[in-house]
This record gives sequence, structure tokens and C-alpha cells, in this order.
Amino acid sequence: MDSQDSLRRLLTGIRDGNLDIEEGVERLRDLPFMDLGHTKFDLHRSLRNGFPEVVYAEGKTPAQVGDIFSRLRGLADVLATRVTPETAGHVLSLCPEAQYNPAGRTLTLRRAEPSWRAGEIAIVTAGTSDLPVAEEARVTCEMLGSRAFVVSDVGVAGIHRLLDRLEAIRKARVVIVAAGMEGALASVVGGLVPQPVVAVPTSVGYGASLKGFTALLGMLTSCASGVTVVNIDNGFGAACAACRINNLFPD
Amino acid sequence: MDSQDSLRRLLTGIRDGNLDIEEGVERLRDLPFMDLGHTKFDLHRSLRNGFPEVVYAEGKTPAQVGDIFSRLRGLADVLATRVTPETAGHVLSLCPEAQYNPAGRTLTLRRAEPSWRAGEIAIVTAGTSDLPVAEEARVTCEMLGSRAFVVSDVGVAGIHRLLDRLEAIRKARVVIVAAGMEGALASVVGGLVPQPVVAVPTSVGYGASLKGFTALLGMLTSCASGVTVVNIDNGFGAACAACRINNLFPD
Amino acid sequence: MDSQDSLRRLLTGIRDGNLDIEEGVERLRDLPFMDLGHTKFDLHRSLRNGFPEVVYAEGKTPAQVGDIFSRLRGLADVLATRVTPETAGHVLSLCPEAQYNPAGRTLTLRRAEPSWRAGEIAIVTAGTSDLPVAEEARVTCEMLGSRAFVVSDVGVAGIHRLLDRLEAIRKARVVIVAAGMEGALASVVGGLVPQPVVAVPTSVGYGASLKGFTALLGMLTSCASGVTVVNIDNGFGAACAACRINNLFPD
Amino acid sequence: MDSQDSLRRLLTGIRDGNLDIEEGVERLRDLPFMDLGHTKFDLHRSLRNGFPEVVYAEGKTPAQVGDIFSRLRGLADVLATRVTPETAGHVLSLCPEAQYNPAGRTLTLRRAEPSWRAGEIAIVTAGTSDLPVAEEARVTCEMLGSRAFVVSDVGVAGIHRLLDRLEAIRKARVVIVAAGMEGALASVVGGLVPQPVVAVPTSVGYGASLKGFTALLGMLTSCASGVTVVNIDNGFGAACAACRINNLFPD
Amino acid sequence: MDSQDSLRRLLTGIRDGNLDIEEGVERLRDLPFMDLGHTKFDLHRSLRNGFPEVVYAEGKTPAQVGDIFSRLRGLADVLATRVTPETAGHVLSLCPEAQYNPAGRTLTLRRAEPSWRAGEIAIVTAGTSDLPVAEEARVTCEMLGSRAFVVSDVGVAGIHRLLDRLEAIRKARVVIVAAGMEGALASVVGGLVPQPVVAVPTSVGYGASLKGFTALLGMLTSCASGVTVVNIDNGFGAACAACRINNLFPD
Amino acid sequence: MDSQDSLRRLLTGIRDGNLDIEEGVERLRDLPFMDLGHTKFDLHRSLRNGFPEVVYAEGKTPAQVGDIFSRLRGLADVLATRVTPETAGHVLSLCPEAQYNPAGRTLTLRRAEPSWRAGEIAIVTAGTSDLPVAEEARVTCEMLGSRAFVVSDVGVAGIHRLLDRLEAIRKARVVIVAAGMEGALASVVGGLVPQPVVAVPTSVGYGASLKGFTALLGMLTSCASGVTVVNIDNGFGAACAACRINNLFPD
Amino acid sequence: MDSQDSLRRLLTGIRDGNLDIEEGVERLRDLPFMDLGHTKFDLHRSLRNGFPEVVYAEGKTPAQVGDIFSRLRGLADVLATRVTPETAGHVLSLCPEAQYNPAGRTLTLRRAEPSWRAGEIAIVTAGTSDLPVAEEARVTCEMLGSRAFVVSDVGVAGIHRLLDRLEAIRKARVVIVAAGMEGALASVVGGLVPQPVVAVPTSVGYGASLKGFTALLGMLTSCASGVTVVNIDNGFGAACAACRINNLFPD
Amino acid sequence: MDSQDSLRRLLTGIRDGNLDIEEGVERLRDLPFMDLGHTKFDLHRSLRNGFPEVVYAEGKTPAQVGDIFSRLRGLADVLATRVTPETAGHVLSLCPEAQYNPAGRTLTLRRAEPSWRAGEIAIVTAGTSDLPVAEEARVTCEMLGSRAFVVSDVGVAGIHRLLDRLEAIRKARVVIVAAGMEGALASVVGGLVPQPVVAVPTSVGYGASLKGFTALLGMLTSCASGVTVVNIDNGFGAACAACRINNLFPD
Repeated sequence: MDSQDSLRRLLTGIRDGNLDIEEGVERLRDLPFMDLGHTKFDLHRSLRNGFPEVVYAEGKTPAQVGDIFSRLRGLADVLATRVTPETAGHVLSLCPEAQYNPAGRTLTLRRAEPSWRAGEIAIVTAGTSDLPVAEEARVTCEMLGSRAFVVSDVGVAGIHRLLDRLEAIRKARVVIVAAGMEGALASVVGGLVPQPVVAVPTSVGYGASLKGFTALLGMLTSCASGVTVVNIDNGFGAACAACRINNLFPD
Repeated sequence: MDSQDSLRRLLTGIRDGNLDIEEGVERLRDLPFMDLGHTKFDLHRSLRNGFPEVVYAEGKTPAQVGDIFSRLRGLADVLATRVTPETAGHVLSLCPEAQYNPAGRTLTLRRAEPSWRAGEIAIVTAGTSDLPVAEEARVTCEMLGSRAFVVSDVGVAGIHRLLDRLEAIRKARVVIVAAGMEGALASVVGGLVPQPVVAVPTSVGYGASLKGFTALLGMLTSCASGVTVVNIDNGFGAACAACRINNLFPD
Repeated sequence: MDSQDSLRRLLTGIRDGNLDIEEGVERLRDLPFMDLGHTKFDLHRSLRNGFPEVVYAEGKTPAQVGDIFSRLRGLADVLATRVTPETAGHVLSLCPEAQYNPAGRTLTLRRAEPSWRAGEIAIVTAGTSDLPVAEEARVTCEMLGSRAFVVSDVGVAGIHRLLDRLEAIRKARVVIVAAGMEGALASVVGGLVPQPVVAVPTSVGYGASLKGFTALLGMLTSCASGVTVVNIDNGFGAACAACRINNLFPD
Repeated sequence: MDSQDSLRRLLTGIRDGNLDIEEGVERLRDLPFMDLGHTKFDLHRSLRNGFPEVVYAEGKTPAQVGDIFSRLRGLADVLATRVTPETAGHVLSLCPEAQYNPAGRTLTLRRAEPSWRAGEIAIVTAGTSDLPVAEEARVTCEMLGSRAFVVSDVGVAGIHRLLDRLEAIRKARVVIVAAGMEGALASVVGGLVPQPVVAVPTSVGYGASLKGFTALLGMLTSCASGVTVVNIDNGFGAACAACRINNLFPD
Repeated sequence: MDSQDSLRRLLTGIRDGNLDIEEGVERLRDLPFMDLGHTKFDLHRSLRNGFPEVVYAEGKTPAQVGDIFSRLRGLADVLATRVTPETAGHVLSLCPEAQYNPAGRTLTLRRAEPSWRAGEIAIVTAGTSDLPVAEEARVTCEMLGSRAFVVSDVGVAGIHRLLDRLEAIRKARVVIVAAGMEGALASVVGGLVPQPVVAVPTSVGYGASLKGFTALLGMLTSCASGVTVVNIDNGFGAACAACRINNLFPD
Repeated sequence: MDSQDSLRRLLTGIRDGNLDIEEGVERLRDLPFMDLGHTKFDLHRSLRNGFPEVVYAEGKTPAQVGDIFSRLRGLADVLATRVTPETAGHVLSLCPEAQYNPAGRTLTLRRAEPSWRAGEIAIVTAGTSDLPVAEEARVTCEMLGSRAFVVSDVGVAGIHRLLDRLEAIRKARVVIVAAGMEGALASVVGGLVPQPVVAVPTSVGYGASLKGFTALLGMLTSCASGVTVVNIDNGFGAACAACRINNLFPD
Repeated sequence: MDSQDSLRRLLTGIRDGNLDIEEGVERLRDLPFMDLGHTKFDLHRSLRNGFPEVVYAEGKTPAQVGDIFSRLRGLADVLATRVTPETAGHVLSLCPEAQYNPAGRTLTLRRAEPSWRAGEIAIVTAGTSDLPVAEEARVTCEMLGSRAFVVSDVGVAGIHRLLDRLEAIRKARVVIVAAGMEGALASVVGGLVPQPVVAVPTSVGYGASLKGFTALLGMLTSCASGVTVVNIDNGFGAACAACRINNLFPD
Repeated sequence: MDSQDSLRRLLTGIRDGNLDIEEGVERLRDLPFMDLGHTKFDLHRSLRNGFPEVVYAEGKTPAQVGDIFSRLRGLADVLATRVTPETAGHVLSLCPEAQYNPAGRTLTLRRAEPSWRAGEIAIVTAGTSDLPVAEEARVTCEMLGSRAFVVSDVGVAGIHRLLDRLEAIRKARVVIVAAGMEGALASVVGGLVPQPVVAVPTSVGYGASLKGFTALLGMLTSCASGVTVVNIDNGFGAACAACRINNLFPD
């Protein structure tokens, strides 16, 4: 496949110092995607939009994740999700400038400080146990250029805790709600704010919580109109959805 | 079977006027239950406690339900649930003093005005569509001797509607919450009142509401502690549970 | 309840001509919600934001829906979903200016032509059978003030049909994707456009399509990041979500 | 957030001895809730009603649980459920006066001997394997001020074992029934006693017992009227429900 | 296919009177099975063992069922299950000597009175609504040569009704238990009698009874050892299983 | 409880040598059951019928199982199922005469050689992986007094392997069929033999085999009439069912 | 859209007789697809390969299906599946040369007799009730150019019926197996023949057959290697799969 | 069993050198299958067709797998799937000429280089995580005599990656598609190529991907006609299906 050969030659040139990074970036614009053997990357998006490359680390070996970070280092921002401490340790030994967030299990590598967009994203959680999902969402938002803040432990069994924080939540452009068990928080928030609400069911709970499916089903049947839902524990996806919205604005 | 023969002779005596009702009641205390061929009734409970006989009419023919009402008339109070208008019409032609509640699909036959217990039962619904279940619960409570009142359409998507009615709800001894879709109302009410809360999931909704299972699962995993749950659309069972509680009081 | 009495008096005044509509609207701003006995309406939102009142007609009798339209006529725009032809006929006999969309099963009543927002919403369907959901979404968008257009029958088994219409889709601010069976269209569209994508699974299909659950699950696990999902056949909810986004813009 | 700062200052004062406990309690009444960063506590309930603070330890680190016990020590009674021996060991090293129940996996910390309520709660189990759930329920009842006693291994396959213990069960004000497999014990007990019956399905069994869902479904469809159900293995929730009932009494 | 031709010629001979029935039966022993075009019958079993041919009428047209009865008339005993009144009417117009049991929805055609086996089969039901299944089982047992008797409405919510009939049940060689809802009756009976117990879950109930699956799962996880289970509402299959057992005896 | 005290005194007497075993057995006939604190045993059945006491070891600690064996030693035959090697080791250190079957994970303790019943039980398996279930069934049969033999690896994908062994299978009085995956072996065997067939689905397989539920469902809907089914992997239950049948015979 | 206009003009020309059919066919080769408003057709495939256009009639009105047949008449062969008698009647009134197969619910319209391919396809069914699916498959095969024959009612409960027909089955190039209930026939056939086997689960059965899902799951976990599966009742899809294989051959 | 004795004597002869391999192979043609005690092998197929013996290693001990390889060595080609590294190590110590593929977890033992068939099989994967399944399929194809090549990481979220490789895919005779999450790749490929497409859902994903069931259901309801499906992660089965097709050709 010709485009593969071109890519290989180009990257070899960069590694050997025979090719200037800037020139390499220029040439990469003409190649459809980058093929690392076990993974293909779509560098266009990254190069053109300042978007990071995203790695879903679950089921990948530390060596594979390390290989990806090493190869993309300097070419693109990189965000890896579901990173175990073991994999993080291996990557950090290769790329010490990468950053590991143990709560959210994210690993990030940035070429430069982002230019922040104007709108902010609120991430609201029902309980303490939803924080890993909230952190994955927060880090993802920031890698995509949007600031985000977390409002935690405001579940509906104590409705005054939520009302106490409502003003802050209303200042955000998009609201992400992470909740497990019955997931009722999404309905209540959706009824209280007019903004887009992206609900993330979490796998918090046991028995009839069905590892997050009860929250998922509850959010999908929310009596508050216009709440949308992503996969269980998918803080990353919720953040992507929120940023698709925030990116509509020219700022 | 001797006890069956005794029962048959006893009831024949009553029908033929050879046996005084009071005497019949006295004698029935010694028989374990009443066998109508297709159905067995446990008259003891009814005779001793003033409890009604209960008939689940779903899957029974109008003739069978009519037979039961005719046979129990004057011997016991009778409550039939899930009664279609057709069956109700047939029974009313046999027992014109019976009363049909078309919203709750209940049919009741009383020998006398009940002596009401002191505590009241609040029945709270999320939406208009939950009213049939609420009505079934209300009629059942009243047949069991407890007054009940309905607070309707206070679902969580507009939390101020609930807060507006909270004072009234707090005056009840037991609270029944009927809600479909995500069933979040049970969690919010359970977090706002200290009384026993019996949640009834309703089959209101479509798609991911799974004919009431999403509400059922959500109520079972409620983040408010001590909320208990009965079967989907089981207004009758919720009322029985509430009355088991109210009946603990000596009044 | 005082607020209820006030509302009753106020509406009686309007019906009797003793109260000017404009004055009535003014006074209503001070009342928390409108209670029609079987249904409670939150007129604030409608009065302040120009939002319609929404009626979910499934499980409501023609008489109940007719009652709602009669009472809200002139006070608010009204949108009813899941309206059977029979119910529509009854309402049109009471409010001849209402409009019935038989494909989308919506019934609408408007006080005036809306002032359209700038951004448009694309509604993309996989097959002909998804059109009812698409129509429900389109009518809802328009009742909420956003123009919408439908791109139909571009399912993934013939990928060139989609690519043929891609340019048109990319001009929208938000994209709604309605698809049944395996629901793969949401992933493909989500990978081709950077805008917010709201996926609606439809109950089109049989056997392993599980009345829409296969599409629902497929959309939730979409390999395209940031696709969000609403309930099965919930064209209304998808439109609300899209309009929550479009309403963020000042236009 | 002002209320947070107040709380922090108040607790610092208590820790440093600058503030008298009684005065601190007084002041706390004016603060809506206590925010430990990872968890928010609603001290009002605890301070006013003598209710314990409850910690669901599953998914929390030993350090987090230890932090909670240390911070609430002396301010409130504390009950933690689903506590592993490892976490228990850590907490006991910080608060040696705490008590660990290895069968029920509960950890409790009390400021003083409770004033017991009059009514007792019976906890009936089908088999030996249901004992952990029964113990969680028993400890919870006692932390909430109600005495409880366990009647174990009286499952329906040997109905005479249950009948042998019936008299003792009938003396309780509320009956909790914990059973796995087909969960039939709840129906049988519900048919034999007139009191409130709270059924807890347990995850005992394999294959078709579906980790407790068969018992859950069986209890929800119990042919004994008025049996209510909580989540699988939720001894804590069953006890809360029982105490909501027992707390109705003035004693 | 030669064997088909032989069969056709043989049956034509019988119909035309050219072939004596006894001789025809003799010759049929050499043919593997009888092919009616839409259905194949295994006449061997019937001819050798006096077993009936069985027709599952669900999904077959009245004409098809009528065709089968007409063709098998005089050649074999025939039992059809799940027969609608409409189909029964059609068959009876063709074979007036057939017998329809409307409760059990069975249609039977016998060549002669059976020679009854010694052991009897008890069919125990939890409630009135289980009678159709019990009747299907009873008729099937009798077509297979075993006498059966029904003990109805002895569900576990009133355990004394069952104990009252226990002596009669214990006289049977095999016990069939038909129960819906939570299906607990199978466990209780299985614990009280040492005989083989075949449990039939019925689709009686609603909501969490899952159209019989809750009873099915409950019976499979019965705490009484050695209870076996057949498909939901499968009175026919339970009877076959019972007769496989009763047929072991030489009588 | 008097009967408990009697039991305790009686067993102490036996342990201390103050009471002769035979006399103890005699006295035990008058006690309803034996209560070991964590477990209750129904010694009547064992004493009168020569049935073993059965212990489901899953979820019990080695100490608990050891306690049971020590206490029942000499009083009854004991069969424990689902015994881990660790638990077996502990029990064998206490009761060296017990026997562990590692394939079937059973532990047995016998007072004397059984007097074998005449009829035999065939245990047929689809594949090698079904052997643990077959072994559990075989050992259970033998503890209940019936000889059993295993015919393994005759699954339907190679139908001639089954036909090769059919003659042997037909000699048994009852046939147990253990199969995983699609469980088709039960249908084929049920169609080939007239005896009672008890099907045990096994959890062999992956993905769509749903841990045995596919085999379970397939066996329940077997096209061979009169096949009955027990819980997944429940070799013990299948053996009990087979022995309930074999025990009907006087031999 | 230009291509749409071209198509419209082209078809108008044909209808008005201004354009010769052959010329029209020629020009259509340059258009990507045909848009009938509610449905898009991919005429290329049809024109180039002699493939029919396929219409899934479920959920389409008689008018819509009639419209499609009228518009495609003469342009392409047409196959409609899941056609009700009512729809068929309407279409036949418009296109009397169309052919309706009531058993398979197919409606076909052919321009000319097909040129048959050499290999044949065997369609094997377990029972009479599977015939509608078999017929849908047979008609589809023939519309796609492959001859097919049906071998019916050879389910595994009478294995000799299958063995009797095995020689015929082995002559086919591809084997389709349609079976409901436990679906075991696919495994047995897959073990007996080396050809490609496409299994179609059918919705025949009740209760635990789960409307075809038990057969579906059983076929997916077949112990015979290399059996593939299509959706429940999808005779059409099985035929397409079989023809994709048969079409590999040059004949 | 005589045939078993013959086999044992025959194999002993080979092992002891008393019997020439070729003669042994000759004699084995007369024996129906080979019984290793825990496993039966059908050597006919292997001896006659050059097919390998297949061992499903999941749930087998290293010793059992090692035993199989040792016994079959030299008699047949052997393919084991789902082989852990530990088991592989053990087998390699016994048969050093065996080959382990750690990605696909296969272990193979060949007597000679295969004679390759002409047609090739394309194995297309959606993502990197699907590679284990693809490798299992590739190795299986090759053991069955067909060459296969893998096209990886061409999921539908970046549709151009697939289009880029389409030409290569179209050259294959059969296409296997392995995809997890929503499994949409099967539909897109099925719409783009006319060849047989065998879809393998993989268990890649989390939450709503349901361990592969979402992909499985999506593939079964694929809008592309004639796509067939095998069990989740069943690369082996997909390869068998593909080779059943490829083996139809005389080459």
C-alpha cells in the first residue's frame, strides 16, 4: 500500500532528524491516516483541529499503549482512557511529561497549553462513587479545549444539596450529569435548567442496579424532555458530546 | 370431604332461610375455608377482622366473578380488582348495590359503612397516567378501613409542584408513591419524609421504560433509604402494605 | 390551596370576558402552575419563553386531550404527541384551527407564526419506516422555534446514498439520526460530521431487533465519540435535545 | 461557598479545642450539610433525630472510610455497611471504640447507649447462607434504635421448621424475611402473619437463581398481599423500612 | 420415495374398502412414518403402544387440524392441544365423536375405552387461574392411560388449605404442581411428599411475574430437592413426564 | 425452646459417652429437627429412610462444613456438594473416613455400605466438559441408594456416537442428560427412549450460551414430549429427581 | 438535487411513451439510485446483475407497496416480503401479473423467466409450523436465480425421519435449516453434512421458546462447527446468504 | 465395547512399534471413533478429508490437553483453541513441534504442509481489540486448508479507512467481519461486497455493549441482506463456515 510506505518513510525521516517536524506535519496532511500496525490513527483531525488522538486503553497491553504514546509524541496531543496504574507507570517511564489522573484513570500528553474556549461545562454527580466518571469527563473536556468543573454528591435523596448548588450549575453552557443507582438526578437537573443535559449512567450500586443499566434505562425514560444519554460509565463520551456543542461557538 | 359438606349444608340453610345469618357466621368460624368449586375463600379473616374478600378478576369470566359476588353477598365485604366494564356490568345486574370505579377498575360490595381508622394514607403520583393505579390503591385502602387521599401529577421534572404539596403529604401516616418512566419520584419523596414509603412502579411509558420495569428497578435501587416496592401497577398490594402498617395502631 | 383558587378565578374571568387576555397573562406569571384536575401545566415556561405546552396523548382519552386543548387555547401554544386519528378528530371538532400530522401523529395549536431561530436541524433516517419518528421530531423542532429538514432512507447498507446527501447534512447546526434494526447510521454519521449528533433508535425491525433495543444499544456503544441517545421512537425528545442546543445561540 | 467555610472553621475550632462540642452542635444546626470533599453529610438528621450517619463502604478506599469515621467521631453515630475486613482493620486502628461485625460486614461507632424503642423487629431467614444479610439488617435496626432478633434456617422445603417458630415471629411489630433461591418464604410468612412484612431477596443460589433476581421477582409477585420488597442483599434498606414503621410509634 | 408410495396405496386401499383395517395395521408396522404432506406422523408408537398421536394446534388452521383428525380417525387415538373453539367446531363437524374440553383447550378422539394403569397422578394448582393448565394435563394423562385428579386453589398464601388436602395428594404416584406468580407451591409440595414432583409454571400474574418466567425460575431454584420443571403453561408436557414415570410399572 | 435444649443435652450425652448411639437415635425420633446454630437438620428423614443429610457447601466456610461433618458423624450419612479442595482437606483432617470426589466436587461420609435398589440410572453427557455435573449426579444417586453409570461425550454433532451407545442407555430405568451449549442432546435422547428423562443444562460454552441459560431454555422447549428440567449445573437435583422415581419401586 | 431531477424526467418520459424502455435502462446506469419519495431504490444492482428490487412490506401501507410495484413494473424484478393478504389484493389489482404466495407471504413480479443457476439449495424444517419461513426462503432463492426444495417436518425428536431424507439433503450446494423451539435440528444437520449450513430460528413455540430467541441462541452455540445464523423468521435473509454462496460459481 | 478394545489394541501397537503407522491409519478407517476416556475423537473425518481434530481447551486442564496432543500426534493434524499460555507451555514441552499463536490463543500441530485451496478468505476487523478473534479465525482457516488475510482497524466511525481497503477485500472469496461495540461494520461491508459475509461479534466494549450481545444483535438485524452470524468471539466458527464455502470448489 503506497500511502503506508510514504508514512513509514516520513516518520523515519522525522525520527532520524532528516525531516523537520513542521515539514512532516505539512506532508502528513496529504496522507489519509497513520497505521501503527496494531492501530490506525486519523491524524488529519488532530492536525487540522487541534483535537487529541484518543486511545481506549482497556484490553491493550502496557507495551501497546507505550508504543502509541512514543510514536505520537510531538505529532499530536494524546488522551488515553481506562488506563491502569501499571500501564501508566510504563508510559510515564517512556514519556515523563505525560500526566496520569488516577481517579479518572486518564493519561494525557500535550504539546502546548490549550487555548480555552469561552463556555464552561458543569459535571454534576449524585454521589462520591460517581467521581471516577466525572474525572474522566473533566479531563476529556479539557483535552478538547473546554474548561469544566465538578459539582459532586448532590443526589436527589437530599434535594436541598442540589438546590444549594443550582446557581453555579446554571452558569455552564452544557451540563453533564453522572449518576448510578436509579439515576434520578438527570431528570431533576433536566427539569431545573434549560441547557443541554448529557446524562452518564454509572455502574454504582448492586443487585437491581444491574451494573448501571437501571440508571441507563431511567435516564432514557426521563420525564424531563430533551435529556440525552451516553453509555454506562462513559465520561469520555459525555465530554465529547458536550464539546461537540461547545465547539459550535466561534469563540 | 366433611368440612365441605358442612359448608354446603350451612350455606343452603342460609339461602333457604332455615338458618339465621348470625348463627351461620358463628358456625363458619369452625370451618377452615369456603370452597366455591373454582375458588376457595378464607372467610375466617373476613369474619374476625372485618377484612374484605378479594377477587383478582383478570382471567376470570364475568360469570365466575358474578358467581363469587352472589355467593359472598351478605357474608363478607368483597373487593374485586382489574374488573373490565363488561364484567362490572354483569355483576351490577346481579348485585345492584355493588359499586364500580372505572378509573381504578375496582368493584366493591359492602355490608355496612366501615369504622375508619385514625391514620391516613397519602397516594402521590408522578403524572396523570398513574391515576388508575392510584385509584386502585385508594379504593383498596378504604375497603381495608383506612382513609386515603391522592396527590397527583407532581413528578420530578418540575420539582416545585411537589414541594408545593409537601406539607399535605407529611400529614399522612404512610405514603404510597406511584410513578412510571424512571420512577424517580419515590427517591425524592423518600428523601423528604420520614414516614414509611411504599413505591408502586407503573407501566406508564414506552421503549426503555420496559412496561414498568425501569421504574421498578429504579425504585429498588432508590438512593433514599427504606423505600419499599411492590409489583408493577399493583395499587392493591401497595394499599395492603400501607394498611398492614396502619393496622398496627390500636385506633 | 390558595394558588389554585386564584387560578380558577383568573381563568373564569378570562372565559367570561371580565378579564383581558394580556392582563391574565400578566397575573399568571405569579402563579406556580395551572392545575386542570387531571393534569398540571407549568405555564411560566410557556409564557416567558414562548415554549409550547406538551401533551403526551398515549393513554389519555379523546375527552381528556380535548379538554386540555380547549382550556389552553389562546393561553399557550400546544403540542400533543402520540395522537391517534380518533383523538385528533375529537380535538379538531373543538379547535378547528389545530393541525394534525398523521405521519408523525402530532397535533399542534399555535397562537401566532413563530419567530424562527437561525440554526437549522437535520433529521436523517435510515429507512422509510423511520419517517413517523422523523416527522414527530420535525414538528416538535418547529413548535420550539427551530427549522428542521428531513433526509430520508440513507441507511448504511448502501453507503453511497448517505455520501450523496452529506453536504446538505453538514449545513445543519445539530443532526438527529433516526434508525432502527442495528442503528449503524448513527455511528457512520457521527464519524462524518463534527456537530452534535442526537440518535433516536426506532422500533423498526423484528426478532433480534428487539423492538428497538438493538438499535438503542448499538447507538449507546457507537464507535463514533460523542453521539448521544434518547429513548426508542422518541422523536419528540430528540427534538427537545436539539433545541436545547440551538437555543443556546442568541439569535 | 460561605457555608463550607463556616463548617471548616467550626470543625477546626472543635478539633483545636477552641470550641465546645455542645456549642458546635448548636451552630451546626444552621448549616445545611457537611462537606468532606469526597462526601457530603446531612448532619441535621443525625443531630435532631439521633439517627446515625450511614456510609456505603463498597467502592471506597480504607483511607476514605477511615477519614469519615475520624471526622464524624463524637459528632454523630456512624454506621458503615459492606465493610471489608481490611477496611475495618484500618478504621479500628484510628477509632478503636468502633465495632466490626464480620458476618454482617458492618462497622459501627456510637457515642452512647441508645434508648430502645418498644416494638421489636423479627428477621426471618430461609437458610444459613442468608445470615450475612440478616446480620446487616439486625445491626442497622439497632443503630436506628429498634431491637431486632433473628430466626434462621426456616425455609419452606421443611415447612414444620417455620411453624415451630411462628409464635415468636408473631410477637414482632415488623417482620423482615430474607431468602434466596425462589424466595418463597416471604409468601408463606406473609400469609401467616398480619404485620408489615419487608422481604429482602438474597443472592444465594446459582444458575436460574440469577444472583437474587429470581427471589426478587418471586417476592414482588408474592401471592400474599401487602408484602413489600427491597433490593437484593439489602439488609440495610429492609431495616430502614422496618424502622420507618417502628418510628411511627411515640415510644 | 417408495415408502411414501406404499403408504399412499395402503391408505387408499383402506379408504376404498379394498383393505381390511387389521391387515392395514399389520402392514403399517413396516413403514417408518406417515406423511400427510404438511405433517408427518410416527404411527409405530401409536400402533404398538396404544399411544395417541398428538397435534399441537397453535398456528395450524382449522382445515389442517380437521384434515389430521379425518385422516387418523380409526387408525389411532388423537389428542390435540391448544385448540381454539373455532377449530374445535370445525373438527367436530367432521368427526362428531371427538370431544372438546374448553377449559383445557384439548380435543380428543378415541377408538375405544382405555385400559387404565394402576397408579394415579395428582395435579395440584395454586389458584383458580391455573385450571386451564391443570385440565390440559389431566386430559393428556387420561389419553396416555393414567387416571388423574385435580386439587385446586391451595396456594401457599394460605398454607392450611394445602395441609387440608395433603393426605389425598400423598396417595398419588406422581404429583404435578401448576402455579403462577412466584410458583412457591412447588417448593412446599416438594418438601412435603417423597414422590416425583413435576412443576409447571403458569403465565398467571402480571408485571414482575414476567408471563410465567418468575414461576419458572423459582421452580428451577426450588429449595426442595428433586423437583423437575417443564415449560410455562405446558400441562401437556407435565402429563407426558408423569406418564413416562407411571408407565415404568408393569401394571 | 425446649426441643432445642433436649437436642443439646442428647448430643452432649453422646459426645461424652454417657449415651449409647442406638439409644440416641431412638430418642431423636421424637425431636422435630436438629439445630446446629448456623444450620438445622431434619434427622427424621435420614433416620427413617436411610437418606443422607445434604450440605450445600458453596458459601460455607471450611470450618462450618467441618463442624457439620463432625456433628453428624455416626448419626447420619452425609453428602456435601460444591466442595472446594480446601474445604475437603479440612473435613478430611477431621473425618478421615470421608471421601472426596474432585471431579464432581462432592464429599461423602457413610456409616455402612448401602443396600442397592434394583433399577439403574443412566447419566448421558454431550461433552467432556459436562463431566463434573455428571459426577455430582452419579455420587448423589449412589448416596441415595441407586446405582448409576455415565455415558459421556455423545453430543448431537456426531449423532452416530450416541446411536452407538443407545442400547446401554435403554437398559436404565431413568435417564439423566447433561449438556451445555444448545442442549440438543436432551431432545434427541427424549425422542429415542420411552423412560423418564431428566435434563440438566450445564454452563459449558461462552457468549450466546449465556452460562447455561441457552441449554436450559432449549431443554424446556424440547420438541421431545415429557422431558423435565432442573437448574443449571444441578447434577445433585437431577439425581434426587431420578431417585424419587426409582424409589417408587418396592425393591 | 440534479440526479433526482434527471430521474424524474427520465421516468416521466418512459411513462409518457416518449422514451424507449431500453434507452431508459441505459440512461439509468448513470444515476446512483431511484428516489420514490418514501423509498430509494438502488437500480444499478438490479439492472446490472438481474437482481430483484426487494420491498419489506411490514409497516408499509397497501398504497405504498402498490406505488412501488407500479413504478418498478417493467424496470426491475420485484420481491416483496411480509405481505398481508390485504396488501397483496391491492397490488394484484394494479399489477395482475404479480404472484402472491400466501404461505410465505411473498409477492413477486418478474419481467421474464430466470436463467437458473446449477447448484440447488435445500431448505430443511423441523416442523409444519416452520413452513412459512421455509416458503419465504424458497421464493427468495428463486427470485435470486437459484432453485430450492423444501424437506419438511424432520425435527430431532424423531431422528429417523431426518436420516430418511439425508441423501436428498446432501445433494444440495447449500442447506438452510429452519427450526423453532430449541432449534436442535441445525446442530444435527450441521454434524451430518459438510456443506455450508445457514440456520434460521423460527418463532414457533411458547413460553421458554421466547418467540424464537431460544432457537436463535441454540443455533449460535451449536456444537456443530461452522453453522451460521440469521435473524428470527428471516427466511429472506437465509436465502440471500445461500445465494451469495451459490452466486460464487460461474454457472 | 468391542470397537473400544480394538482401538486400544491398535494404538498400543503403534506406540510399541508393533504396528506401522500407515497400516494403523488403514485399520482406523473401520472404527467409528477414538475414545480417549475423557474425550472421543472422530478420526474418520480427519483421515479421509485431511481435516484437523479440534480441541476446545477452555475448561480443560493442561494435562488433558497435553494428553490429547500426545495421543493424536502423528495420527491427525490438531488445532486447539482458547489455549492459555500455561497450557501451551505444557503441550510444547511434550510436542515441541506444535505452534502457539499467543494473539489468537491457538495451538496447532501439523503432520505436513497443507495443499492450499485456491480461494482466499478476508478477515476484516473494526478495531485493534478485535485482533484476537481475527487471529483465531486466520489460524483456523489455514488449518482447514484455506489461505486468509487480515484487514484490521477499519471501523465505521472513519469510513474512509474502510473504503481505502475495499479493493483488497473484494478479491477474497468469503469475507469474515469481526467487530464489537455496535458491530456496524458487518452492515457496511455487507452492502459493499456481493460475496458471502460471515459476521463475528466480539466482546469488545463495556456497559451497553453487553459483552458482545449488542454487536451480535446488531449483526443479526443488519440492514444488508444475507449477512450471517456466529457466536460472540467465535473466530473458529466463522472460519469453519468460511471453509465450508471455500471447500465447495473443486480446487
